[in-house]
Amino acid sequence: MREAYQSDLRYLVDDLVDMASMVRTALEDATTALLESDLGLAERVIAADPHIDERQVDLDSKIVELLARQSPVATDLRLMVAALRMSSSLERMGDLSAHIALTARRSHPEPTVPAQHREQIARMGELAATAVHEAAVVIAERDLALAARVENNDSQLDELQREIAREIARSEGFSNAQIVDMTLLIRFYERLGDHAVSLVRRVGFLVTGDSVDTLNSATDVDEF
Amino acid sequence: MREAYQSDLRYLVDDLVDMASMVRTALEDATTALLESDLGLAERVIAADPHIDERQVDLDSKIVELLARQSPVATDLRLMVAALRMSSSLERMGDLSAHIALTARRSHPEPTVPAQHREQIARMGELAATAVHEAAVVIAERDLALAARVENNDSQLDELQREIAREIARSEGFSNAQIVDMTLLIRFYERLGDHAVSLVRRVGFLVTGDSVDTLNSATDVDEF
Repeated sequence: MREAYQSDLRYLVDDLVDMASMVRTALEDATTALLESDLGLAERVIAADPHIDERQVDLDSKIVELLARQSPVATDLRLMVAALRMSSSLERMGDLSAHIALTARRSHPEPTVPAQHREQIARMGELAATAVHEAAVVIAERDLALAARVENNDSQLDELQREIAREIARSEGFSNAQIVDMTLLIRFYERLGDHAVSLVRRVGFLVTGDSVDTLNSATDVDEF
Repeated sequence: MREAYQSDLRYLVDDLVDMASMVRTALEDATTALLESDLGLAERVIAADPHIDERQVDLDSKIVELLARQSPVATDLRLMVAALRMSSSLERMGDLSAHIALTARRSHPEPTVPAQHREQIARMGELAATAVHEAAVVIAERDLALAARVENNDSQLDELQREIAREIARSEGFSNAQIVDMTLLIRFYERLGDHAVSLVRRVGFLVTGDSVDTLNSATDVDEF
């Protein structure tokens, strides 16, 4: 019985890592669809998002069932509460990836991203996808050294968002619709970075026992 | 002992309602600061956000303690899991209100909102504040008839966001920075509506026993 329970806990972690892998694929495809104006790929990302949502529903049901059946305390209880929070973050990261694809679809056949910002958006896409991948490794292996890299990726995403916003504010020749789309796009990537940080801080919380929520909730209140 | 436990559960609901009241104040003040270019008020909203964050941390600690001490099952367990989710939504709604205040501070002394959009933004502010207030009543009284009004407020917020975005895309004479700020602002209000819907759907889930998560996660994937 105890052994079955430990294996259930292990499955929770595996499910979170699987969800992260689905999010990473959605995010990478969304960035490709955006930069290559690939409408078919954008549609596939949008169509795939409900699968990520379903995984969250399944995972949450498992957690509630485990809470009811096992009445965990201490570390196990904290893992389950953290897993509930992490599944929410991952589900939201799936939504944000779908939003990027929706932006690509809305402006099609015009490219959403003006030529002079392509490289920066490609870089935001890479940073966000790397953050998702590294967060998954942190969840699987509780490697807090890697967690610091996710925080660093997030800082770079914040800085790129500010840089692009400043450049857009100064530049000429963009249509208003392009400015609206670019503003939302860079926000979506920046929020993906915030959620990746939230994931690794929850793992840090499990490992160290410190409360992470105050730090975590501060992530998104900054100047932009 | 059983009586003390019931009273703990009652406190959870009271705490959620208190948090909602703090969010409503922050949101109303942020809208006023924005529309009246009131820098002092914007600063107060920004400075108050950590108090909402602290309330979330306190509430979550209480829930984890209750889970450990009482090993709840069935309805009580579902209430606690829902309360964890609702405290996250409320904390995020506090962040979004602070974001509105940050936008007002960033453009000060220039008004963030161009004259022709003042009425629409005032309306978004009212709709969002009403949604927060009504969500709090739904949490306190489990009044699902009122939940339908929160959903309706959210639809109106979505429609206003689309309407303003369309108008901005067509209009002339706005600076790029104004377009960036307006795009973010209308997104913040729209997200506040989504979170209010998420709150009342969780209450619906508690009352009816239906799973709400699939519906809920779909809230934000739409055309804008």
